[in-house]
Amino acid sequence: MNNRIPVAILGATGIVGQRFVQLLDGHEWFQVSALTGSERSAGKPYREVCHWVLSDTMPEWAGEIPVLPDGQELSNARVAFSALPADLALQIEPRLAQKGFVVCSNASAFRREADVPILLPEVNPEHAALLDVQRRQRGWMGCIATNPNCTSTGLTVALKALQEAFGLRRVFAVSMQAISGAGFPGVASLDILDNIIPYIAGEEEKVEYEPRKILGRLKGDGLHPAEFTISAHTNRVAVGDGHMVCVSLELEHPADPAMVGKALQEYIAPSISRDLPSAPHPVILLRQEPDRPQPRLDRQSGKGMTTVVGRLRPDPLFHIKMVVLSHNTVRGAAGGSIYNAELLVKMGVIA
Amino acid sequence: MNNRIPVAILGATGIVGQRFVQLLDGHEWFQVSALTGSERSAGKPYREVCHWVLSDTMPEWAGEIPVLPDGQELSNARVAFSALPADLALQIEPRLAQKGFVVCSNASAFRREADVPILLPEVNPEHAALLDVQRRQRGWMGCIATNPNCTSTGLTVALKALQEAFGLRRVFAVSMQAISGAGFPGVASLDILDNIIPYIAGEEEKVEYEPRKILGRLKGDGLHPAEFTISAHTNRVAVGDGHMVCVSLELEHPADPAMVGKALQEYIAPSISRDLPSAPHPVILLRQEPDRPQPRLDRQSGKGMTTVVGRLRPDPLFHIKMVVLSHNTVRGAAGGSIYNAELLVKMGVIA
Amino acid sequence: MNNRIPVAILGATGIVGQRFVQLLDGHEWFQVSALTGSERSAGKPYREVCHWVLSDTMPEWAGEIPVLPDGQELSNARVAFSALPADLALQIEPRLAQKGFVVCSNASAFRREADVPILLPEVNPEHAALLDVQRRQRGWMGCIATNPNCTSTGLTVALKALQEAFGLRRVFAVSMQAISGAGFPGVASLDILDNIIPYIAGEEEKVEYEPRKILGRLKGDGLHPAEFTISAHTNRVAVGDGHMVCVSLELEHPADPAMVGKALQEYIAPSISRDLPSAPHPVILLRQEPDRPQPRLDRQSGKGMTTVVGRLRPDPLFHIKMVVLSHNTVRGAAGGSIYNAELLVKMGVIA
Amino acid sequence: MNNRIPVAILGATGIVGQRFVQLLDGHEWFQVSALTGSERSAGKPYREVCHWVLSDTMPEWAGEIPVLPDGQELSNARVAFSALPADLALQIEPRLAQKGFVVCSNASAFRREADVPILLPEVNPEHAALLDVQRRQRGWMGCIATNPNCTSTGLTVALKALQEAFGLRRVFAVSMQAISGAGFPGVASLDILDNIIPYIAGEEEKVEYEPRKILGRLKGDGLHPAEFTISAHTNRVAVGDGHMVCVSLELEHPADPAMVGKALQEYIAPSISRDLPSAPHPVILLRQEPDRPQPRLDRQSGKGMTTVVGRLRPDPLFHIKMVVLSHNTVRGAAGGSIYNAELLVKMGVIA
Repeated sequence: MNNRIPVAILGATGIVGQRFVQLLDGHEWFQVSALTGSERSAGKPYREVCHWVLSDTMPEWAGEIPVLPDGQELSNARVAFSALPADLALQIEPRLAQKGFVVCSNASAFRREADVPILLPEVNPEHAALLDVQRRQRGWMGCIATNPNCTSTGLTVALKALQEAFGLRRVFAVSMQAISGAGFPGVASLDILDNIIPYIAGEEEKVEYEPRKILGRLKGDGLHPAEFTISAHTNRVAVGDGHMVCVSLELEHPADPAMVGKALQEYIAPSISRDLPSAPHPVILLRQEPDRPQPRLDRQSGKGMTTVVGRLRPDPLFHIKMVVLSHNTVRGAAGGSIYNAELLVKMGVIA
Repeated sequence: MNNRIPVAILGATGIVGQRFVQLLDGHEWFQVSALTGSERSAGKPYREVCHWVLSDTMPEWAGEIPVLPDGQELSNARVAFSALPADLALQIEPRLAQKGFVVCSNASAFRREADVPILLPEVNPEHAALLDVQRRQRGWMGCIATNPNCTSTGLTVALKALQEAFGLRRVFAVSMQAISGAGFPGVASLDILDNIIPYIAGEEEKVEYEPRKILGRLKGDGLHPAEFTISAHTNRVAVGDGHMVCVSLELEHPADPAMVGKALQEYIAPSISRDLPSAPHPVILLRQEPDRPQPRLDRQSGKGMTTVVGRLRPDPLFHIKMVVLSHNTVRGAAGGSIYNAELLVKMGVIA
Repeated sequence: MNNRIPVAILGATGIVGQRFVQLLDGHEWFQVSALTGSERSAGKPYREVCHWVLSDTMPEWAGEIPVLPDGQELSNARVAFSALPADLALQIEPRLAQKGFVVCSNASAFRREADVPILLPEVNPEHAALLDVQRRQRGWMGCIATNPNCTSTGLTVALKALQEAFGLRRVFAVSMQAISGAGFPGVASLDILDNIIPYIAGEEEKVEYEPRKILGRLKGDGLHPAEFTISAHTNRVAVGDGHMVCVSLELEHPADPAMVGKALQEYIAPSISRDLPSAPHPVILLRQEPDRPQPRLDRQSGKGMTTVVGRLRPDPLFHIKMVVLSHNTVRGAAGGSIYNAELLVKMGVIA
Repeated sequence: MNNRIPVAILGATGIVGQRFVQLLDGHEWFQVSALTGSERSAGKPYREVCHWVLSDTMPEWAGEIPVLPDGQELSNARVAFSALPADLALQIEPRLAQKGFVVCSNASAFRREADVPILLPEVNPEHAALLDVQRRQRGWMGCIATNPNCTSTGLTVALKALQEAFGLRRVFAVSMQAISGAGFPGVASLDILDNIIPYIAGEEEKVEYEPRKILGRLKGDGLHPAEFTISAHTNRVAVGDGHMVCVSLELEHPADPAMVGKALQEYIAPSISRDLPSAPHPVILLRQEPDRPQPRLDRQSGKGMTTVVGRLRPDPLFHIKMVVLSHNTVRGAAGGSIYNAELLVKMGVIA
């Protein structure tokens, strides 16, 4: 434990920041050496400025760390886990990358940049090669690696297994997303009790784009998005954690539910990411019950890192209907960034 | 009020039964003369056996009516509004129809029969012609007219306007349905608090079939379902009333959101059903806000009889994305049956 | 309708402001002529700046009114209904009162002032006499009349009936309060889904003080609070509207549940306030079921103005246990202020 | 692990039964050898008949156990953990006790019997002496030991610390209880969404009686209940797990919040129960924040076995106000029975 890599959490007081703190508590490779927050929080102990909303208690060590202002020096940290909002990320992350930090970012700010990979280690670890392009092109000592939007995450893991097995043509995806995905205070209780909000700003665009980038192919210095098309509807519902997506799929090589189920269950992560500390076991859990997955019951599968799929059945328009569940603040946010950082350690990007 | 038509409510103690009682309270054409319930309830005043779950108080007159056992004589009623479960409906409704009752049924038992119309007065009043076929073929003095499944209802109203304007080819529909749709006690609170159930038995089949029958064409004695195809996913969420459906549409004649919006707003009911007591005003309400409709805010539109549509936008796979909301126990159940009965009065089927 | 009194709503964009708009829609005596809001909203039509959260649609006329900045001239209004937060109320309300407005305030800012009555027309209309004292002492042309805190409201109505009948000594009151009581955005959904917050800042102090002032006695220019003692615990729960209070009572003259029930049911408002447009009918509704009142089922009683009491039973420590429910944003806020204004019209305070 | 004591779970398919299965998974002293259920379930594997509602997955070993009919032979089990409903417990538990089983029961059926202890090992382990009386008087080879009602549990733990430190005179207790306390399907979602049910059959009587028995004193063969008085109101709210109780206390020796806090924090379990496998650490957790405990955040304290207290403040009528939280299906049900069994092993009652 003495040789753990010092890391910083940017935007540490929000929900995703809290998940970083929780998931890095006792992490075998990383040790939190800095937490940042808004000007208002700066200088005060984390305990005093963080409205902790997770059911596990705030770790003692975290409570005592004095919060640094966003954008300031990060003491000896070598990795910066970013839970910053997109506008702040846009300013702060490049500065850190330039100075040599490896920024593992949950923010959407750079996901569409040609030289910034959106990484899911169990899906596309090879896209980390873009980080070299990024450093070369931008003259940075460090780099920015992103993880996808929380709704894209589980969807893309499931699509990967099917892309490999059958090829993908068209994907319909309708999400029912947890309130924790909106941060804190986020969704007002009056807006969601006994209600649904059928709109999340910018979300549908992300879900229609990110899986195609992640499942795309590297050629030379560039990344060619996968050629299937996605149509997404995104909704907010009264669930605490866990984003669920109803998916209809048109495959290149038609398959029945049994074949699809087999492909999902047999999917394994590339060897480089298979045994990392945060690797999901299994990568995909296939539920056989007619009424699963369900957020409350299944979001903790594989410590919140497993993608849970169920309700495989034929689709009258395309080929297959299915339901995908993924823990939005674990696999879909903080856990995803940490898993990415582990991959980059294994690859030597983080020394 | 003295000449109101006496009507019975079958299965009057359940949620849909309660809505019948509530909506028939002070109805200008109908007067409730009988309420039926299970053997356990029979003989007792409605007040004692009904676990009333609506926020309006139970009408005084209803509380005092002694509940008749399901399947028994209905005193002087001429119309039987059925809120029976499908298995009981299968036995009881034909017996009543044979004896001369006009059964306006919310049950699914006969919806797939070739000579039983699924009626939405603002959509397909002409399908009531099947009732003659039904009487002739079955030798019944009365008849059975059904209203569609609660999720099919709003969806079909919206589809009607677009079928007329542009023609329909393919429809994706993902529902988020209220707990009242499952009756009482229905969904256990432990199953839905902080949760979603991505499965409702038999529901997807209904949503994939019923709109096509309702939007089909009469030829001779038969009904030819409309030729578009529907793919449905159905989900239960923690909402009290109001079924919401995310819809993606492929049209025969492509249209943009503005054209679709115009078609929805300009849709009016056929003249025969336009001014009936329960007719929705407007038939379709188009919300322009980016985040509407929402169940809590919009389900009462047009006294719960209006179909509310919003979030019109282009679809990357098909042509149009939209969101449809309909009050499941009003327009989608009791209110729908009553509206049907009003249509049948106007047509002279109910004398 | 042409001679209606022009009124302003201060803080019109919040939840209580919205209730004022809703309840004043079509009011027989008052007509809204001005709406105020924050600097950010000022100058824009109400429709654009108000995040409307009520299930009834925003009235057309309100949507078009341009919002005035808080604290500015109120055109021709003679009454100012205040839904301002306490700190703003502290500055703005006295200025308006000085200029001649009758301020009917829902804010807590002045409730503890000796010359400011907390009015419940069905309980203590005679306290309006303090308004003269107020004008005299402060040299104001207008005045400030307040309504109590939303939790105090229903509790005090019920206590009034029992104070009259039996005298009061000690009162335990534990509230379970709706999220609408915290305004919008108010309670974050992450804080209340699957949760209870056992703390509402300043609330217990109000509930322990206000009923005693309201039930106190005028002597000369002063008001002597009633001499019983209240202990209050206040909690926030996942309910949309309706504050419920579990109450245990020690009476001066012991009574059994039947006697208490009789006193509650027989309680009638003083004649001056009995037939005002917003007067509750009945003042107190006594539910006999073992499990009522319940917020969802009973909060609309008497159009949200009735105090609902139930579960009368003996208390092993004091004399009586009971449960009290009151609609917090209707009787407990906007409806209460309007009812107060009606009383002041009747009394000639509003000319 | 080879020498673990074989145990049976009676009523294993319900919520409390499921908690027994979960908490006994990998238990160091006990091994589940039998599961019982209704006639309908009998003979089938547990996996098939149990509607599992916990977020941890059902243990593999449990899924494969064939369910025995309630009341039948329990193979080699020596301890019977009972999650039976009271009426079944009344018949089945005495038969098992007679045959030599030690029944650790969560049922209320025998809690009021003079020779049946209600045990909380961290509070009154000495009451286990009643088991000898019970065997002697009833001629049983085994015995029945109960744990208290879920709402009584946390309340009594907190009261114990204060009884010891200051003596107790009068206790007001108003509960807000989780839906899991009503079993499955239990509370209908329509009854609790956006609602409170201010009534739980039989609950107030239990909360007013059980703490006094548990805190009573053994004299000869009898148990003298503690002499303070409790007044309880019990409510059901929309929370998944965790019963919260607002408490006002009159002490024999008045104390201020600081003194009471000290007494709560310093309370330790009797040495015999302090280090048992299920012993809570700490017994009582005192939260200092103004708005804690909260069910979602604090119910897992001490693995769900710790009693969490907060909001200590003066009471205007009595001496102290506080809020107590306890996990109702862990400390308040299955975990409590298991902790009791561990105590009985330590005492030699279970050989």
